[in-house]
Amino acid sequence: MDSHIAPVELEKAYRLLNHGPTVLVSASHGGVDNVMAAAWACALDFSPSRLTVVLDKMTRTRALIEQSARFVIQIPTARQVQLTHALGTTSLLEDPDKLQKSGAELFRIEGHDLPFVAGCSGWLACKLIPEPHNQSAYDLFIGEVVGAWADTRVFREGHWHFEDAGPEWRSLHYVAGGHFYAIGDPLIVATGSES
Amino acid sequence: MDSHIAPVELEKAYRLLNHGPTVLVSASHGGVDNVMAAAWACALDFSPSRLTVVLDKMTRTRALIEQSARFVIQIPTARQVQLTHALGTTSLLEDPDKLQKSGAELFRIEGHDLPFVAGCSGWLACKLIPEPHNQSAYDLFIGEVVGAWADTRVFREGHWHFEDAGPEWRSLHYVAGGHFYAIGDPLIVATGSES
Repeated sequence: MDSHIAPVELEKAYRLLNHGPTVLVSASHGGVDNVMAAAWACALDFSPSRLTVVLDKMTRTRALIEQSARFVIQIPTARQVQLTHALGTTSLLEDPDKLQKSGAELFRIEGHDLPFVAGCSGWLACKLIPEPHNQSAYDLFIGEVVGAWADTRVFREGHWHFEDAGPEWRSLHYVAGGHFYAIGDPLIVATGSES
Repeated sequence: MDSHIAPVELEKAYRLLNHGPTVLVSASHGGVDNVMAAAWACALDFSPSRLTVVLDKMTRTRALIEQSARFVIQIPTARQVQLTHALGTTSLLEDPDKLQKSGAELFRIEGHDLPFVAGCSGWLACKLIPEPHNQSAYDLFIGEVVGAWADTRVFREGHWHFEDAGPEWRSLHYVAGGHFYAIGDPLIVATGSES
């Protein structure tokens, strides 16, 4: 594992998602790895650390998650905008070489039988909390975060440091039709305590 | 209604939320209006247009939504960062003058018996889709968007135009402890079609 990658306390894992980045969702089952992009992922709880993600029935990644009950939500960076768009617009069902063509590089983290995408800024390993009604009626999946990591060059001590890292580290925020925004400048409100 | 406010097609309403902004949630019941901030709001479907929002059991706004089955999700701007933080850190249950002290100005839109917060960049009027298990187990509420509007100075023809508007129009993306980021610069991937 890259020496810049450090664990994030599970109770602070929501902070990787709190500012609303577009994410990459990865999963593995029966020797098949896949990765898709998703703009509709969101924190759900602090403790236990939980999140939601919307997964279309047409995606291969969803089937892998239904089979393995495990997935990774990771935060891609501005450097990965082409990769993110490619992973969000091609399907493994149509192109068996999708991952190879996209240039996605996968790595493993000990103790987690999951494919992690290299070069991201944060990773949340999740266990599916089965909710068949949500999954079937709304394509809505709930995960419990069982492990979290971040690249300390942009997230450390429980906080993003986009302003100190290079522009290539900014998170991606997708709108539509190939249009993303990078996260921008900090705005800090004076406050006596954490909220 | 401000002459800059124009309706947004319901099928494009998700684009107001797609880039993951922190939102203001407002509701009204029995003559009581309230507004809270929420970082955990997310698009759920294009058509019908649906969204999710996480509402803690301790919030007065949640009770108003449970009673009225209606709410507004609106996108505050960088100009409203103090307002957003104030609305997210004080409760109407503790301070009956919360709204007045925060400086929130409410307006009505014909045909919708709901309080809309003035000065935001987008508004989504929602009808609660009752899902008692999600609400009770996860504090997770699902809304169907029944009306959407945006300020045309920053969102028009189905797209955000942050880069052409002043910095005071940028959306807010909350992390923790009074730390927000504004949305940043566009990153556009060449693509043959809308995706």
